[in-house]
Amino acid sequence: MSNAAAYALATPDGTFEKVTIERRELGPRDVLIDIAYAGICHSDIHTARNEWGRTRYPCVPGHEIAGTVAAVGAAVGRFAPGDRVGVGCMVGSCGKCGPCLADEEQYCERGAIMTYNTPVDASVQTDGHTLGGYSTQVVVGEDFVLSIPEGIGLDVAAPLLCAGITLFSPLRHWGAGPGKKVAIIGMGGLGHIGVKLAAAMGAEVTVLSHSLSKQEDGKRFGADHYYATGDKQTFRDLRGRFDLILNTVSADLPIDDYLRLLALDGTLVVLGLPEKPLSVRSFLLAGGRKSLAGSMIGGIAQTQEMLDFCAAHGIGAEIELISADEIDSAYDRVVDSDVRYRFVIDTATM
Amino acid sequence: MSNAAAYALATPDGTFEKVTIERRELGPRDVLIDIAYAGICHSDIHTARNEWGRTRYPCVPGHEIAGTVAAVGAAVGRFAPGDRVGVGCMVGSCGKCGPCLADEEQYCERGAIMTYNTPVDASVQTDGHTLGGYSTQVVVGEDFVLSIPEGIGLDVAAPLLCAGITLFSPLRHWGAGPGKKVAIIGMGGLGHIGVKLAAAMGAEVTVLSHSLSKQEDGKRFGADHYYATGDKQTFRDLRGRFDLILNTVSADLPIDDYLRLLALDGTLVVLGLPEKPLSVRSFLLAGGRKSLAGSMIGGIAQTQEMLDFCAAHGIGAEIELISADEIDSAYDRVVDSDVRYRFVIDTATM
Repeated sequence: MSNAAAYALATPDGTFEKVTIERRELGPRDVLIDIAYAGICHSDIHTARNEWGRTRYPCVPGHEIAGTVAAVGAAVGRFAPGDRVGVGCMVGSCGKCGPCLADEEQYCERGAIMTYNTPVDASVQTDGHTLGGYSTQVVVGEDFVLSIPEGIGLDVAAPLLCAGITLFSPLRHWGAGPGKKVAIIGMGGLGHIGVKLAAAMGAEVTVLSHSLSKQEDGKRFGADHYYATGDKQTFRDLRGRFDLILNTVSADLPIDDYLRLLALDGTLVVLGLPEKPLSVRSFLLAGGRKSLAGSMIGGIAQTQEMLDFCAAHGIGAEIELISADEIDSAYDRVVDSDVRYRFVIDTATM
Repeated sequence: MSNAAAYALATPDGTFEKVTIERRELGPRDVLIDIAYAGICHSDIHTARNEWGRTRYPCVPGHEIAGTVAAVGAAVGRFAPGDRVGVGCMVGSCGKCGPCLADEEQYCERGAIMTYNTPVDASVQTDGHTLGGYSTQVVVGEDFVLSIPEGIGLDVAAPLLCAGITLFSPLRHWGAGPGKKVAIIGMGGLGHIGVKLAAAMGAEVTVLSHSLSKQEDGKRFGADHYYATGDKQTFRDLRGRFDLILNTVSADLPIDDYLRLLALDGTLVVLGLPEKPLSVRSFLLAGGRKSLAGSMIGGIAQTQEMLDFCAAHGIGAEIELISADEIDSAYDRVVDSDVRYRFVIDTATM
């Protein structure tokens, strides 16, 4: 066991307090990581505030983790102290089911062990559930540790571990690239990285944002076009346009209006998870053989591929670096969509 | 101009009456067809009774047409008198848009000319809209005439022109074949052909029907498994099972329950068109990267491929042959799901 500093919520309506947590003894295949940065994902907020139910307290969120290796277990071959590494949404999976064997651990049939809030044996994490990256250290099995290439700063790499892979995976799966017209709904923490990734893949990229307020940023990130969805003309102008639309917005959107923007065989992928069921007119799917699909982060191998891709293309998240005592106010600002574009906690302030 | 006998509805709540209609003079690329059989599709009923609105009267439905060539225009090269031919849901399209150039005329951006109820110039069809196959003759441009191979009887071939291609196209598009687990929801006019096609393609086929009443037929058509959806245990037993589910049922189904039956990357394709919007929980799409899609008949080239495939595999529809004066009662029986499995009108009775 070793002690680490962390920022935790004790109750759904509390504020983050500095606590000391225990990280487990290094097993032979474990990696002890000195966390340098932890991104703030909207899922952290939903979980910390128990908006999805089932939150276990104390709650230490954080699944966009970047840092350096402090120590490795005896059997670890891929990492050595000092290596730049990251941890995303998962720290384990069954390793035996079809999805795991297909490098799609996020769809593990037994359920992946998420980086925080998943019940685990007390020998894995003292409190009986995983505790995440709002902390100075974490111990993770090497199979779930990613290598962060030299080309990316650790601070701007952190959000790639969740936001980055959440966009990269569907872009790859549905073939974004030259000759493909891709639209990204929402220019927030997820969307802005999606624009950068899709543009780097060679696709023609359109941002569909509520207003034009972030248009200059969007173009700078690589968007070819930028439209306001608050303007009804947008839906007339873009009818039948896109091969792939990625919806990063959790709010309830009129899905039918967006299905009309798809070209023949186009796919609309839902990445945010609205609380209310989606309402879909089936003739909008049949006319043009369109698909409404979902996608959830990506596998570990693909997460590494994404990091390597980002390094090769000079892609990092746009961030606002904060100190640990600013987490509560940062949460409020995320809820108000008042962040450009991702908060990252500097764990040196813990 | 030439006269043909036809059965038409003059009003939404009328009964079918025998009428004489005019078919246009043969243009250089036209084919005059002596219709032998016309299948009754549920769409015929929706249109004839104006349940979808926009029905133009007199209404002569029928887009599952099989017969022989009576005469051809001077420039027709592919057909000669006596040839066994069929006509499906479409008799024209723009021929210039992306979908048309991709042999997907059913998704023509200007809208395909459907076999009945599409407004056309009076020189194309005297009444100002297309009149369908409940008739003794029809004139169709050769590009929309299909060749019916010797191996299939014209009577059991007729329903293939709509029901057959409606199932064949999504089975092909989503890769049904050896190693794939395919489920067909509904064992009616569409579903029973889907079972035969999917089995002939080599897929493992499961029927999901309300009850087990047609189980023996289903197995005979090639189904490996047969489950009753009226039994809740079915949804527990089949969780995560299928790569592809084709829903042939127009009634409002609990889509979420069926999404749970999909395996990783599975697709649920809606072929029936329920009136109410579908309600879909987005986390059911995200968990397993699943898709909800639609599909509408198939292109002309693929329809020919389907007919050739059916001939090679000895596949025809299961039909009940009726005389023209039985159309009204047949409609009532279709609405009551009391047909095994497709009514076909013998036009010799007109």
